[in-house]
Amino acid sequence: MKAVVFDGEISCRDVPEPKADGAAILSVKKAGICGTDLAIASGDYQVRTPVILGHEIFGTVWKTPGEKSGLARKRCVTEINVACGECDFCRAGVKSHCRKGEALGIHRNGGFAEFVSTPVDNVHVVPDSVRDEEAVFIEPLAACIQLVKLGSIAPDSSCAVVGPGRMGLLIVQLLRLIQPTRLVVIGHEGAKLELARRFGAEAFDVANVDSALGLTGGAKFDNVIEVTGNPGGLDLALKIVKPTGTIHLKSTHGMPASLDVTKVVVDELRIQGSRCGPFDEAITLLDRHEIAVRELITDRFPLERSQEAFRVASSKSAIKVIFEV
Amino acid sequence: MKAVVFDGEISCRDVPEPKADGAAILSVKKAGICGTDLAIASGDYQVRTPVILGHEIFGTVWKTPGEKSGLARKRCVTEINVACGECDFCRAGVKSHCRKGEALGIHRNGGFAEFVSTPVDNVHVVPDSVRDEEAVFIEPLAACIQLVKLGSIAPDSSCAVVGPGRMGLLIVQLLRLIQPTRLVVIGHEGAKLELARRFGAEAFDVANVDSALGLTGGAKFDNVIEVTGNPGGLDLALKIVKPTGTIHLKSTHGMPASLDVTKVVVDELRIQGSRCGPFDEAITLLDRHEIAVRELITDRFPLERSQEAFRVASSKSAIKVIFEV
Repeated sequence: MKAVVFDGEISCRDVPEPKADGAAILSVKKAGICGTDLAIASGDYQVRTPVILGHEIFGTVWKTPGEKSGLARKRCVTEINVACGECDFCRAGVKSHCRKGEALGIHRNGGFAEFVSTPVDNVHVVPDSVRDEEAVFIEPLAACIQLVKLGSIAPDSSCAVVGPGRMGLLIVQLLRLIQPTRLVVIGHEGAKLELARRFGAEAFDVANVDSALGLTGGAKFDNVIEVTGNPGGLDLALKIVKPTGTIHLKSTHGMPASLDVTKVVVDELRIQGSRCGPFDEAITLLDRHEIAVRELITDRFPLERSQEAFRVASSKSAIKVIFEV
Repeated sequence: MKAVVFDGEISCRDVPEPKADGAAILSVKKAGICGTDLAIASGDYQVRTPVILGHEIFGTVWKTPGEKSGLARKRCVTEINVACGECDFCRAGVKSHCRKGEALGIHRNGGFAEFVSTPVDNVHVVPDSVRDEEAVFIEPLAACIQLVKLGSIAPDSSCAVVGPGRMGLLIVQLLRLIQPTRLVVIGHEGAKLELARRFGAEAFDVANVDSALGLTGGAKFDNVIEVTGNPGGLDLALKIVKPTGTIHLKSTHGMPASLDVTKVVVDELRIQGSRCGPFDEAITLLDRHEIAVRELITDRFPLERSQEAFRVASSKSAIKVIFEV
């Protein structure tokens, strides 16, 4: 089968199809490129190679073990964490932190391929109301839901999203649902900030951060969500967060960032990381058309044009780039 | 009066006595040197100069405004945050984050002096059961209580304290009271680790971190308290904290630290800063002799030997160095 393999660099190759071995085999239809994929491709996020990338996967169930044969041919997405089921985290129901866990497209072969193997329990059926391209966003949307939950972002708090990219523009829409007192997006003026405005945020160019702060009457923001995908974003987040506030981290760029520890202490700040989230809730939101996602797709590529797809996905103008298999 | 002034460097000088202006004037008897003082003196923590340093202050009330004359001659300590009483934080009862707040010994003249001016509301009477030298620890102990509270450190969690210094050895004793499943201290083998052991912790040299991790069966620690006072401590904290765990920051060394953002995200870590805490609770703990503090005093100096006092306080062997006025 064709697959986009990372082995120090990205290429589309012919590789053996995955074996079932008790897992489900999905026939991949669409798969999204995310920041982690780009960080792996650039060498900043280190993984064991060779590996087939891709963990935002939509497809149909191609093969399943006998007892789950009802899943056959269903439209589906898959969670990315393959867990042991036996460690302390698994027993506590937190399989995303399984001690022996491996993530699709990071530690084991992922979905930028014609077929991908995944545990049957990780498969979620996608309702007909959610289109193929929309379903690609279930994984990242679930991750954004996790940010809101783990970071205890409350209604009646003010929120600033730094970085109107593929995650930022999902988070803005999620935050809109909880009705923050202020919802501000900071980025570079252009199409992405325009989208943020369409999604109900007040949007400012980074050169104009003082105007964003002015909206709070100088109080600064209770919550700052750092989704720039680069290490410098943390410093801006520290500048605009209110004392006793929270900075929510989501970037997995693989690079060290500089942290003003003294400011974190003096201002009693909280920094909260978050990763994978609840697929069911993401599917429900898409089923209800509460989150606009197709507007975020800027480019589509076949697997064979993987290098071009990654180059475009790294560009400033791209939001979500997807592979069509 | 004599005072230890920082003006690019430390010196003991003759300066005018503070004016009351509606505040209380304390006659300082003892004052402790803390990490913030050292960071200011080294130039890493930047302040407006000249300023009299010192914010761990014990003394007696020398002058008070008329309506508070009952405080006269009382043995006392003072909180360090001078608040406006009118901003959003003050109205919410959080004067430590007053928008116009100034801290004694940092933004306004502090207590390494014969006299210090402080708002009457900041003055706490010290019970006779607490000796003069013990009372110097009320401010830092309150700050450690704040760490435990703000960081939601629960019984039944495992705790590692990185840095058995003046804060670390207070925190160890506080944590002992909440009966963690594991209480580990990591530092350099020597007298400080011996004290940590006396206070009920299992103590390990930094070269032997793997043994500390072994105690958790490889699970790592739910809580890691980073009180090394230097930027490298954060990296060690990240190595030994459990996924979904919390790193508690307390160092105000004024230097940027390198943060592995990707690890914070992937492991869904929380980083929590904390600063000043409840004086009443600290006084209660000392009154009950629940926390040993005199053992932490390694050196005593008069104000006139300020440079030597700061040099000694910066040395590896010192724990708490106090001025006797």
